Amino acid sequence: MRIIGIDPGLRITGWGIIDTEGSRLTHVGHGVVTSDDKAALSDRLRTLYDGLYEVVERYQPAGAAVEQTFVNANAMSALKLGHARAVALLVPAQSGLVVAEYEPSLVKKALTGSGRADKAQVAAMVARLLPGIDRDARADAYDALAVAICHAHHGGTRAGWTARAR
Amino acid sequence: MRIIGIDPGLRITGWGIIDTEGSRLTHVGHGVVTSDDKAALSDRLRTLYDGLYEVVERYQPAGAAVEQTFVNANAMSALKLGHARAVALLVPAQSGLVVAEYEPSLVKKALTGSGRADKAQVAAMVARLLPGIDRDARADAYDALAVAICHAHHGGTRAGWTARAR
Repeated sequence: MRIIGIDPGLRITGWGIIDTEGSRLTHVGHGVVTSDDKAALSDRLRTLYDGLYEVVERYQPAGAAVEQTFVNANAMSALKLGHARAVALLVPAQSGLVVAEYEPSLVKKALTGSGRADKAQVAAMVARLLPGIDRDARADAYDALAVAICHAHHGGTRAGWTARAR
Repeated sequence: MRIIGIDPGLRITGWGIIDTEGSRLTHVGHGVVTSDDKAALSDRLRTLYDGLYEVVERYQPAGAAVEQTFVNANAMSALKLGHARAVALLVPAQSGLVVAEYEPSLVKKALTGSGRADKAQVAAMVARLLPGIDRDARADAYDALAVAICHAHHGGTRAGWTARAR
């Protein structure tokens, strides 16, 4: 099964694509979609949408997972993050995919065995599980690949965040 | 000029369309797009997107304005609202429209002269400015028409929220 993982952010949204066959994982592609922070918010969202849409069209994933980024106490930051996450959820949904969401601690745990691992540990495990990927990849792309791997570990069947949060 | 006003919400998003010719306003249409709160978040966003997309396709507005709903102290609520607002900003932007955002107090002031007017006062002014509209319209549709009227009052030229917030 081909899985897209997405690490949403208004300025930088990371994406990563892996193939799974049983317990075997293969790296397919990764990258980031960026939006200009001097542009209008509506245009930034359109840029993220277009970028992710192109990725989904190109790679045709059968499963999708989005990192449910930590909501801090700042409501304005949360609102902005909500905008980027909406696009990350919307684009795969429009291709008919069920979109799973994973909390960062769950992603860390799936990759390293510990929910408190740091970014470097997670990136090292991504590189180990997906040999041959570009070591210079942006951190956001590594994070997106980590979400995709987490989804693979959960059998690609986890229900969405809304369902879990209720 | 034809203007679409949008009052975003994850459960109920109101929309309203008016035509402006000089200082003359004409009601064109209004309604709400609702999403099932038992559905997955990604599917709810898709429903809102599809509904708004259909409205923009049908009415072909030349201007768009979105109510910049109040962000309260609850980060989780802000995050959810961010999801709905992202869709409200994205859909008109994808049709090439510049999307303006107005704070609720500005909408109230444009309609009633006071930024502290209550919902009933705003609705009464919407009904007076757009004679013939359905008095049974949902509050969310009234709010959306109010945003459209506010945009008309500002000459349809106000820059987006991101630009103002920096």
